Amino acid sequence: MKFNSTLENITTYEAGKPIELVVREFGIEPKDIIKLASNENPFGCSPKVKEAVSAIVSKMSLYPDDSMIKLKDALSQRFDVAKEKIVIGSGSDQVIEFAIHAKASSTSKVLMNSITFAMYEIYAKHVGATVIRTASQEHNLDEFYALYLEHKPEIIFLCTPNNPTGDAIDAKDLFDFLAKIDEDTLVIIDGAYMEYGMYRDSDKKVEPKELIEKFNNVLYLGTFSKAYGLGGMRVGYGIASEQIIHELYKLRAPFNITTLSLEAASVALSDEEFVKKCIISNFEEMKRYEEFAKEQKIDIIESYTNFVTLCLNETQNSSSIANKLLQKGMIVRDLSSYKMNAIRVTVGTVEQNSRFFELLKEII
Amino acid sequence: MKFNSTLENITTYEAGKPIELVVREFGIEPKDIIKLASNENPFGCSPKVKEAVSAIVSKMSLYPDDSMIKLKDALSQRFDVAKEKIVIGSGSDQVIEFAIHAKASSTSKVLMNSITFAMYEIYAKHVGATVIRTASQEHNLDEFYALYLEHKPEIIFLCTPNNPTGDAIDAKDLFDFLAKIDEDTLVIIDGAYMEYGMYRDSDKKVEPKELIEKFNNVLYLGTFSKAYGLGGMRVGYGIASEQIIHELYKLRAPFNITTLSLEAASVALSDEEFVKKCIISNFEEMKRYEEFAKEQKIDIIESYTNFVTLCLNETQNSSSIANKLLQKGMIVRDLSSYKMNAIRVTVGTVEQNSRFFELLKEII
Repeated sequence: MKFNSTLENITTYEAGKPIELVVREFGIEPKDIIKLASNENPFGCSPKVKEAVSAIVSKMSLYPDDSMIKLKDALSQRFDVAKEKIVIGSGSDQVIEFAIHAKASSTSKVLMNSITFAMYEIYAKHVGATVIRTASQEHNLDEFYALYLEHKPEIIFLCTPNNPTGDAIDAKDLFDFLAKIDEDTLVIIDGAYMEYGMYRDSDKKVEPKELIEKFNNVLYLGTFSKAYGLGGMRVGYGIASEQIIHELYKLRAPFNITTLSLEAASVALSDEEFVKKCIISNFEEMKRYEEFAKEQKIDIIESYTNFVTLCLNETQNSSSIANKLLQKGMIVRDLSSYKMNAIRVTVGTVEQNSRFFELLKEII
Repeated sequence: MKFNSTLENITTYEAGKPIELVVREFGIEPKDIIKLASNENPFGCSPKVKEAVSAIVSKMSLYPDDSMIKLKDALSQRFDVAKEKIVIGSGSDQVIEFAIHAKASSTSKVLMNSITFAMYEIYAKHVGATVIRTASQEHNLDEFYALYLEHKPEIIFLCTPNNPTGDAIDAKDLFDFLAKIDEDTLVIIDGAYMEYGMYRDSDKKVEPKELIEKFNNVLYLGTFSKAYGLGGMRVGYGIASEQIIHELYKLRAPFNITTLSLEAASVALSDEEFVKKCIISNFEEMKRYEEFAKEQKIDIIESYTNFVTLCLNETQNSSSIANKLLQKGMIVRDLSSYKMNAIRVTVGTVEQNSRFFELLKEII
């Protein structure tokens, strides 16, 4: 059977190895496996969320409230923006999918950083769009602007803090850049790790309300998968002008968020105390990574997220090191598919991080 | 901002009103509201599923196993087909979305029944495809064949049992029809209500294994939202040749099913006893609907599903009746948007159905 030609160029996303697979492949007991590969919150989610979800398991048979009123109210309050300026996706990934399908086609160009979240390119290929990338490893907005002038892309992606490198753009620089972009180019600011970034340095804080008040062509993305500890529940959101949200809504299938996920995300927003505690611990532990890297003479990218990227030297090979760690039950992300000789490690609990340091020392 | 022109023609899906909205709009207490509008299982889901999901709420922070090995193993066993012939979607809706995006484009035609599940058309419009419909209310395969010869559609949808009318196609007729269709036309058999249909009449039973062994161009769809009582968890599946599944997989975003949903669906398959009990009750109660309709001189379409479609006479108006029921806390589906003067009512519990009969008698 023949399929659309756009499918020929699609590669699928390489997810962090789930614990289940490592159990099967290496015969390691689940209790002996530590996964620091997918930037999940090592403290899980708020106890209040667990309680709330447990209380409604009998509602699994009922379709979700497709107006998502409870979650939209909570987000609207959290960000001080009208509900009409919010769309909810099955992870912020799905909002990216809506945006690309709404704005791009096989004749479009999509501009993004040299190294950035892999799904931007995958979704762009769904519609057959051409991907343009900068050359620098970190977001260089001058380079972005030059490529914007040269290619006139339909969509620009800016990921701040950036995944999988951890660096972040200063909000001031971001606003200056946006002011130079024409109104018909959609600029997507992916703030999946923003809660971490703005805690480490307030200069990195991008406020969605300010962003969309100033610019009609910007879509801000956030997620419950990271700081809120709900990676398994698949909830993210987009904030933009009413016009953009209205168009994205046309591509949203009904019931795209499960009944339990809507409850989980709504309640998660009411426990900011939990999130704060997790973020404080994250940056305390981050210091240990920085010290460890210095000791071991490994380059580290200054991180505004809940992960660290260790850039290995020429005598070390990221794939081989990640594989050796895996055989010992430690799952991290090899970045060779991003053409980096580096591994990305989620900042875990004190014990998890200590175990990582111990194992990596044995290996290198 | 300009968006793709295909968006201009997209209408959004009209979902059954959730209880939350009726509470807000009419100030009726949740306990006084009965929802028979979305064909949810009135008995909820299996107690084993509730237990299993409650036991893993602390895993909400962990991304789902993206290989979905547990659920795929369970489905593979249930249908006796290889795992490589299965794709899992966020509801079978999402598998429809994959299929249309993989096979159709703005120059394509998509053939479907005059009255059928609304999402087929909505997804077809996402890619700008032209929708061709038969004239008969029930699936008439001769008419389908004539339109197939005339239009050479890329995709044909057959929904059996059909939603929102409840009628079903004989498996023998279906196989005869498929034998006449060329190998490059994708035929999608939507069996969302198959568990009900095959219980009422074994002639309606379409076995996915037999289907895909005989035909390389057929995609069978099933769901956990109806008989398995998991409408809120968003899990459906597609079964087809390895080639078709391979192509659909290219459009599947990673982590499209939540961690709790994967567990719920896997465990649901292990409690067929629960499903059987629900289906037996469904058809016992269906008899009461048939008697009620006879008494009230309302036409009813013979139903192979968990809902009944009441076709009203000229002096009655489906929108007005549905609205009057709503004000009394009884939510049913008005089918006027399908150009039918009819209401669709989910077969509920004994008490729910009695209440429906009582209220409808008061109104008409």
